[in-house]
Amino acid sequence: MTEQGLQRVIVEHVTPEIDAGRFYIKKVAGESIEVEADIFTDGHDHIGARLLYRHENDKTWLYVPMHMVNNDRWRASFDLEKAGFYYYTVTGWVDHADTWHHGFLKKYEDAQHLNVELLIGAELLEAMLPAATKADQKRIGKLITLMRDEKNYEQAVAEVLGKEIHHYISTYPNLDNATIYTPHLKVLVERDKALFSSWYCFFPRSASRIEGKHGTFKDCEALLPRVAEMGFDVLYFPPIHPIGHNFRKGKNNAVNAMPGDDGVPYAIGSTEGGHKDVLKDLGTLQDFKHLIKEAASHGLEIAMDFAIQCSPDHPYVKKHPKWFKWRPDGTVQYAENPPKKYQDILPINFENDDWQNLWTELKSILDYWCEQGIRIFRVDNPHTKSFHFWEWCIAEVQKKYPGTLFLSEAFTKPKVMKQLAKLGYTQSYTYYVWRNTKHELIEYMNELTQTEMKDYFRPNFWPNTHDINPYSLQNGNEPGFITRFFMAATLSSNYGIFGPVYELMYHAPYPGKEEYLNSEKYEVRYWDWEKRNKLIDVITRVNAARKVNPALQHTNNITFCEIHNDQLLAYYKKSGDNHILCVVNLDPNNRQWGLVQTPLHALGLYPGQDFIAFDILTGRSYNWNQEWNYVELDPHDMPVHLFKIELL
Amino acid sequence: MTEQGLQRVIVEHVTPEIDAGRFYIKKVAGESIEVEADIFTDGHDHIGARLLYRHENDKTWLYVPMHMVNNDRWRASFDLEKAGFYYYTVTGWVDHADTWHHGFLKKYEDAQHLNVELLIGAELLEAMLPAATKADQKRIGKLITLMRDEKNYEQAVAEVLGKEIHHYISTYPNLDNATIYTPHLKVLVERDKALFSSWYCFFPRSASRIEGKHGTFKDCEALLPRVAEMGFDVLYFPPIHPIGHNFRKGKNNAVNAMPGDDGVPYAIGSTEGGHKDVLKDLGTLQDFKHLIKEAASHGLEIAMDFAIQCSPDHPYVKKHPKWFKWRPDGTVQYAENPPKKYQDILPINFENDDWQNLWTELKSILDYWCEQGIRIFRVDNPHTKSFHFWEWCIAEVQKKYPGTLFLSEAFTKPKVMKQLAKLGYTQSYTYYVWRNTKHELIEYMNELTQTEMKDYFRPNFWPNTHDINPYSLQNGNEPGFITRFFMAATLSSNYGIFGPVYELMYHAPYPGKEEYLNSEKYEVRYWDWEKRNKLIDVITRVNAARKVNPALQHTNNITFCEIHNDQLLAYYKKSGDNHILCVVNLDPNNRQWGLVQTPLHALGLYPGQDFIAFDILTGRSYNWNQEWNYVELDPHDMPVHLFKIELL
Repeated sequence: MTEQGLQRVIVEHVTPEIDAGRFYIKKVAGESIEVEADIFTDGHDHIGARLLYRHENDKTWLYVPMHMVNNDRWRASFDLEKAGFYYYTVTGWVDHADTWHHGFLKKYEDAQHLNVELLIGAELLEAMLPAATKADQKRIGKLITLMRDEKNYEQAVAEVLGKEIHHYISTYPNLDNATIYTPHLKVLVERDKALFSSWYCFFPRSASRIEGKHGTFKDCEALLPRVAEMGFDVLYFPPIHPIGHNFRKGKNNAVNAMPGDDGVPYAIGSTEGGHKDVLKDLGTLQDFKHLIKEAASHGLEIAMDFAIQCSPDHPYVKKHPKWFKWRPDGTVQYAENPPKKYQDILPINFENDDWQNLWTELKSILDYWCEQGIRIFRVDNPHTKSFHFWEWCIAEVQKKYPGTLFLSEAFTKPKVMKQLAKLGYTQSYTYYVWRNTKHELIEYMNELTQTEMKDYFRPNFWPNTHDINPYSLQNGNEPGFITRFFMAATLSSNYGIFGPVYELMYHAPYPGKEEYLNSEKYEVRYWDWEKRNKLIDVITRVNAARKVNPALQHTNNITFCEIHNDQLLAYYKKSGDNHILCVVNLDPNNRQWGLVQTPLHALGLYPGQDFIAFDILTGRSYNWNQEWNYVELDPHDMPVHLFKIELL
Repeated sequence: MTEQGLQRVIVEHVTPEIDAGRFYIKKVAGESIEVEADIFTDGHDHIGARLLYRHENDKTWLYVPMHMVNNDRWRASFDLEKAGFYYYTVTGWVDHADTWHHGFLKKYEDAQHLNVELLIGAELLEAMLPAATKADQKRIGKLITLMRDEKNYEQAVAEVLGKEIHHYISTYPNLDNATIYTPHLKVLVERDKALFSSWYCFFPRSASRIEGKHGTFKDCEALLPRVAEMGFDVLYFPPIHPIGHNFRKGKNNAVNAMPGDDGVPYAIGSTEGGHKDVLKDLGTLQDFKHLIKEAASHGLEIAMDFAIQCSPDHPYVKKHPKWFKWRPDGTVQYAENPPKKYQDILPINFENDDWQNLWTELKSILDYWCEQGIRIFRVDNPHTKSFHFWEWCIAEVQKKYPGTLFLSEAFTKPKVMKQLAKLGYTQSYTYYVWRNTKHELIEYMNELTQTEMKDYFRPNFWPNTHDINPYSLQNGNEPGFITRFFMAATLSSNYGIFGPVYELMYHAPYPGKEEYLNSEKYEVRYWDWEKRNKLIDVITRVNAARKVNPALQHTNNITFCEIHNDQLLAYYKKSGDNHILCVVNLDPNNRQWGLVQTPLHALGLYPGQDFIAFDILTGRSYNWNQEWNYVELDPHDMPVHLFKIELL
């Protein structure tokens, strides 16, 4: 016989719950979490239910009463106040006192004599005494006496029909046979930047203002004001470590480097050192640490690239031969995608019997850079490394360095990308770069924000990256650059661009590929960092708007609005009383117009009531008072509206 | 660090799986089970996967290779051959040999030199030797020698490109680091009647052919040929135990019985005995056992009613006072739904500290009747008894008496009904009795057969019961009686009717209620058991058709067919090469016609190909050769088509 023999209440199908509680969900401090569960009992007795929760550092559960929504589905929510893990679960019980009270009222209405009912009630009240406060004990005691006194029948009945007794019933339920849902579920509460961040990426080696010169950390410092003025808050660098010499690639990924070629920063490691060292051409560790501090003073946090792979010169190859695959001819196995060979890069073999030392060493790289002041890592191709490693590694680093964020650079199959997010990645690159039409964009946003993904997968939208020069931008059309940036920054609360390529609208492709010509992955580039243009102005305004409009600091709060034009995309975001309405002309060549359905209900408006749509980008105001409102966007003027809806 | 450090493959989202493996799914012997899972690894290595399964009595797993359907979803199925529990799970692994072989082909096509590749392959083959058969060991050994012999390069390459090596690769994978999904899932394989049964219910006390006389088990025996000839295979009796005298109800649920009133069979227990005794008016235990045997000789299995409640005279009340609730005035608590009182029935209080003895005693009732030869129980109002009790009780009884079936009579909230099915009930009453329109019927069938319910909830469709005289039949309209019966028997493989009320089309309601006037629940009735009519003829033909058409012996095999008339419902069922098409005129008054879309693809036909729609009920044949075919149903002739589709 089961131990739960006396537990009559079933609690099941708790949400949010990822894969039967195998994974935690993710939130940031200040958010709340809405929990639902199916809760019911046999028979017709009344039941009660509570949402239980506690921070990992607290021992006792706090609770919120749950209420039934419909069809035995119950709901409640609680606030996440501080960082770290919270546990939550749901408890339900048969509420005999409430059942009795309900029956008492029915029998009273039916004019039945209630003598015995009063005595039953007195017994139920008696059971509440141990849990009650002193003051309540006194009052409850008096009620009990009254209910057992036949001479005061009328008064006792009146008391039972009053409000006070209902308060005791809901405050002191008998939880002896309560069911508590298992497993207890977990939510990780992270710092704000996990949910709201604006990334800018550039290659430090291209930071020099002197053409032909290798950029340095010092040069990067000089660029910090530019990045900060555009309104970004994360500055991400591709790897800054020593670059291998054996099998070094040349410009535009030429198989053999020419003398003087600087190589690929992702071919990490040389006699100069490995993942815990910096490339001498960039400067010293001290220079880098100085840069981190300077960046912080501009409100910028440096994100490092974590790429687990080695050049053939990496010190690991000799020191830890077990971590690599060796071929029967005694050579080390390089990366390949047959028949292609990538001899400049050695993958780590996670299936080796020294795996525990491997994991420890890899984690120590992250610990090392955390020690230097880093708290954000962009992880290169995490989907080609062991899943279990990531789960362990991210948890361990975050335990030691709370608030460390990880961005998963996995452009791969959907389930693999989801898995990495479930295993602990704070944010994830997405397919946004390849979602262009209205239908594609809405469908993808719905997948991200309306399915279970919303609870564990935080998208980070990039219109380009140093690996991807999307076909859609290869014509260099300015409205296209504006809209692709704008949607990234307003659809998703986390987004980034690879600059200065993006804002300078550099677009020359490597012929036939979705990559850049003369990519900085293979060579040092010189850029005109002083240049100003309309796109930079839009970026600056949008980032400024993101900072002051909480509605833009969330992703799951999106609702698409009807607009009868396939080239116009409209969406609404809300946070508290902050209301943002975006309209995008997806056609980079032609003026488009249409009627957008404004979400009057969400705005708390009735048709006919006046309100203002203030366009943050142009400063123009529109006085609206209807549900359907006319919009018209000329891509050569401004292809987007960023409306703040102001109620009068 | 996790123990699974070297397991690179993820296996998740296995289906069928009920509530993370908390509950088993249900099948009958001869069915197969199709299992799917998300399976993937990091990186680009090839993977392999197997569906593992074993009968509870077997120790070693059997397996079937899984294949990828799409988007990392894999599938395989296995056959359920014998009754009892089977376990199943899924395993996946990185297939290094297959990855190597694939790369070998690519490199060969690229005209690369394959010396080292041959040596790598030889190592992979070597690892297969311990698992290989003697014969295969010899052949694999020769291959290894060849691949390591530089002088036979051309021949070795040819062998690797041949078929044999692929056989070894798929037969002897290296499973050292395979991932095995947990928890291992369970399926209960039951006897055929769990899935395919035709129930007939009557009150034994109404079985007498002499008006005014109390029916006996002997009288029941005389009715067995009638029930068997109509084609039923389960004969279910409401309770046959002694009936209480205190607070006995009268006819039509009168509060007080008149002298001579026989009482309600659900008020179980008197000084004559309780749940393990039979009402003397019906006969002796020996008579009942004789009836069970006689029924069996007619292909009929007797189902007993299990109603856990007591009349105030039940021996338990004195012997086990702890099992009841006692009021402060010293009286025992009767059933109530305030302000209504049901003083003739005492509910069992499952929340008592003697609950283990209670559970044991209740189970012993079922054991007792199993001992007398019973293997089917219809359980009265299971939703008003402890859920955990049912889970334990059903499992224990089925362990001791394999093949025992339980029908849940829970007409209550959806999640409670589902819970009882998950806890072990073989079959469940449904809302069918209240689903009348085409939309309602299709929606309900889709819920039962297209959602997770299909794996654990076996519907049993009743157009009436002794508790329910549905409003839709209270006008006594013959076409209505035919269609409601017909749909029950063809939509669902399990169905039943309460007779002879149903087939005699008795329909007088208790005024204003969905109950029968002069219900046999409250009095003995006399029926004309010899009467014949059109409905009895239809019942007989449909039951005969059910026996010889496997398509009608399943419920989840249904597909609704388009037919552009809201009064016509058409559905198709298939099992192997047995094809049934049903068309129902839901309008009991008017002729209806329309074009029905015949599922040519499922039939393996192309438009223009001849086939025959043979109506089993009327004997008429229709020669069809198109996808859309004309049907016309006159309710006063025959409101339904039961087509067997015959291919030429």
